[in-house]
Amino acid sequence: MYKIILASTSAVHGKPYLSYLFEEIKTLFNGVDEVLFIPYARPGGLTYQAYTEKVKSAFSSINIAIKGIHEYENPRDAILNAKGFFTGGGNTFLLLKTLYENQLLDVLATEVKSGKPYLGTSAGSNIGGKNIMNTNDMPIVYPPSFQAMGLIPFNINPHYLDPSPDSTHMGETRETRIKEYLEFNTIPVIGLREGSWIEVNGDQIMLKGELMAKWFEPNKSPIEIPSNSILGIGDLVHEFS
Amino acid sequence: MYKIILASTSAVHGKPYLSYLFEEIKTLFNGVDEVLFIPYARPGGLTYQAYTEKVKSAFSSINIAIKGIHEYENPRDAILNAKGFFTGGGNTFLLLKTLYENQLLDVLATEVKSGKPYLGTSAGSNIGGKNIMNTNDMPIVYPPSFQAMGLIPFNINPHYLDPSPDSTHMGETRETRIKEYLEFNTIPVIGLREGSWIEVNGDQIMLKGELMAKWFEPNKSPIEIPSNSILGIGDLVHEFS
Repeated sequence: MYKIILASTSAVHGKPYLSYLFEEIKTLFNGVDEVLFIPYARPGGLTYQAYTEKVKSAFSSINIAIKGIHEYENPRDAILNAKGFFTGGGNTFLLLKTLYENQLLDVLATEVKSGKPYLGTSAGSNIGGKNIMNTNDMPIVYPPSFQAMGLIPFNINPHYLDPSPDSTHMGETRETRIKEYLEFNTIPVIGLREGSWIEVNGDQIMLKGELMAKWFEPNKSPIEIPSNSILGIGDLVHEFS
Repeated sequence: MYKIILASTSAVHGKPYLSYLFEEIKTLFNGVDEVLFIPYARPGGLTYQAYTEKVKSAFSSINIAIKGIHEYENPRDAILNAKGFFTGGGNTFLLLKTLYENQLLDVLATEVKSGKPYLGTSAGSNIGGKNIMNTNDMPIVYPPSFQAMGLIPFNINPHYLDPSPDSTHMGETRETRIKEYLEFNTIPVIGLREGSWIEVNGDQIMLKGELMAKWFEPNKSPIEIPSNSILGIGDLVHEFS
């Protein structure tokens, strides 16, 4: 009985932090008065406490209390005792490495799979996929593995960007990067544009938000998927024809 | 007696592959009639052979023969017997993993440090730095380490992009990413814009090309460095005041 939101971004342009998702967050955490926040991704080098304060402030407007996992002496117990989780964005390598170092990845995955609600944004969504091989982040630290929680049977590329037709920049486009990934991997990838998210309700995995998303799998051309499409059921990926 | 060029990109907008560097390449490989090409980064999933053909074609116009390392039964011997090297761009994780798997990273570094000329572009430049923690590439495979050849005493961020003031995209800017890196690492980073390169001549490490480059080190604001600046001498990084 999964209750999960994995969002491309924590904020859409011109709107306050998380506010575009408030209605979804209220539904996700219905009946939960306090959420455990995992600040390990540390965007822009923010301290855990400063990052947690920002999240507290946003959640206070929907009457949900926030505690940072760093506020507990034993972070493992904090996860076991929590009623719900939010993992914020930042650097995915740093987030995953810190979870491994503290031996928290498995316990977090187990608690979420047991039905506790989980919200991820950006890096926090990346770790909900099978592995982090489709992160856009810079590998600023070396994690012991790229394997992630596998809350869904595919990977996420957040902040998906369409190729800019008038760019003179010679770096690879996002689509090129994901196609290179598919030369060496079989796990499908969803490119989630800003403002899109994945919702898991029980065993049903759906695309949400106003925009289409781009779906990549081996030996097929990428396709555009409309909002409210079913992406998978439990461990099974939907077969897009 | 190092002879090295580490370039941001293999092509600048509107010009054929490598052509903007032909004069430099001729000087670098002066007296060398055949160069060993390392195609392991496989841009866009190109085969080794197709990638090597592209490089052969470009080098033929400056009368230098190219052999791909995959054409040899023993790639280690190929490196030991080569007169010079070119490592092309593509995916840095894939390039580094393949070099480690074939136990070639150390031998390549040793041969270059003994004075054989080396040309790198993009991913091929990333592996010339101390480690690959400032690559822009997607982590599509898991290398056994992020440590690279350390031909220069700092890291390279190729294809450096300045923040776009009118962007509505919520992903991190390149500058933000490098600043996050500096929260956890002490090795400086140079952001090389398209058309810039690093030239190592003997023990002198210089910035070349028409543009300025951006220099990042811990606890300092990033600074713009003009072309022809000395970036380091041997293992010593230049002290930018």
